[in-house]
Amino acid sequence: MALIGILGGMGPLATVDFMERVIQLTSAAGALRDQQHLPLLVANLPHIPDRSNAMLGTGEDPLPALLDGIDMLNRNGVELIAVPCNSAHYWYDAMHAHSSAPILHIAETCVAAVPPGTRCAAVLATGGTLYSGLYQRILAAHDIVPVAPDEDTQQRLDACIHAVKAGDLIGSAEHLSAALDDLQARGADAAVMGCTEIPLAARHLKAPPMTLVDSTLELARATVSYGLARGWNARR
Amino acid sequence: MALIGILGGMGPLATVDFMERVIQLTSAAGALRDQQHLPLLVANLPHIPDRSNAMLGTGEDPLPALLDGIDMLNRNGVELIAVPCNSAHYWYDAMHAHSSAPILHIAETCVAAVPPGTRCAAVLATGGTLYSGLYQRILAAHDIVPVAPDEDTQQRLDACIHAVKAGDLIGSAEHLSAALDDLQARGADAAVMGCTEIPLAARHLKAPPMTLVDSTLELARATVSYGLARGWNARR
Repeated sequence: MALIGILGGMGPLATVDFMERVIQLTSAAGALRDQQHLPLLVANLPHIPDRSNAMLGTGEDPLPALLDGIDMLNRNGVELIAVPCNSAHYWYDAMHAHSSAPILHIAETCVAAVPPGTRCAAVLATGGTLYSGLYQRILAAHDIVPVAPDEDTQQRLDACIHAVKAGDLIGSAEHLSAALDDLQARGADAAVMGCTEIPLAARHLKAPPMTLVDSTLELARATVSYGLARGWNARR
Repeated sequence: MALIGILGGMGPLATVDFMERVIQLTSAAGALRDQQHLPLLVANLPHIPDRSNAMLGTGEDPLPALLDGIDMLNRNGVELIAVPCNSAHYWYDAMHAHSSAPILHIAETCVAAVPPGTRCAAVLATGGTLYSGLYQRILAAHDIVPVAPDEDTQQRLDACIHAVKAGDLIGSAEHLSAALDDLQARGADAAVMGCTEIPLAARHLKAPPMTLVDSTLELARATVSYGLARGWNARR
């Protein structure tokens, strides 16, 4: 039996959202019974130190805890790993070098799904991810101009993310809506939701003012494609 | 770090629902940041043979696969196990005897939450669980008269459960609604949702005709109480 490893808990609700997407996409691909779904081993490790704070130089290094999680998944023989946390991908190269199983890259899958013709895409992410330039570099490599939030708008996005982590989805959507209005006024014709908490807030928006590309959904698509192509949903 | 093991994938959406309940209950108990949530190791193993068919004598024995899952969780040092599948509890004694970590009993936690004063409680479960008498015995031990569905109503419940497993939540709720009308007419003043797919259908009911006791929610409550009482949400 091939297992897909998920290094999660960053945050916990985002991991659940990711798993639900994987299951829905597998159902949409024809699974009607439990036995036609993909086996997953989910290390939901919420104690991993805050990734954004570490990138901003104000918090503990999460890399040892991230590698412990990667080790746990590999010890159990997983054949692919997905990490539904964008900020954790600041340490992608170190995790990748440390892992026997290949690790999907959430930001690569997300930017690849930006609709053709998009000129300027806003980056919706934690302060740390924004500061790291992760999404700006990948967007630029795809000839898309990244639109970074100014300081006030980034504070709105950080508040949105913290509200999701505290379970307040309605409050999170109000912060997100204000941020999107500003980014639209600054020329963005799409936005990458480069933090896995943000799609949970976006589901409570009345009418998003631009196309929102969901990093959780795109990582789930890549995971399900990889697993189904190898027949991992069929018992062996 | 103390880990809570979840033996899931039976079915996959029910496991996600259980995890979401655990997270919501932990938030409600005061968790505001990732690091205040409970670490979980989730073995989402949907290939485990169908439990209901095995109890009815028409399918493969799932016990070896259940014990493999229990072994995997124990090898990773989990200190408590929850199994968000009622039908799997037909094999509870064998899993319990095989496991170093204690295993919560979903049907015990569910029946303990039936409101005081309930005289007759309908059993909403797979055909196999109904046939096994699991809920009938525990209800009787609590001085509650179990109301078992007749054959037609059980077919409705089986159709409800299969619709959830196939991702059709609206269709599942129609089957559940018809079953509840019949069980109310037969004297039930409450119902135990003794299959973890059924609460997903129940969320799409317009107005349930009686109190519905949710086995997924009650197992999540027991899991969170156990973990928080031991401080497992605080990093060590």
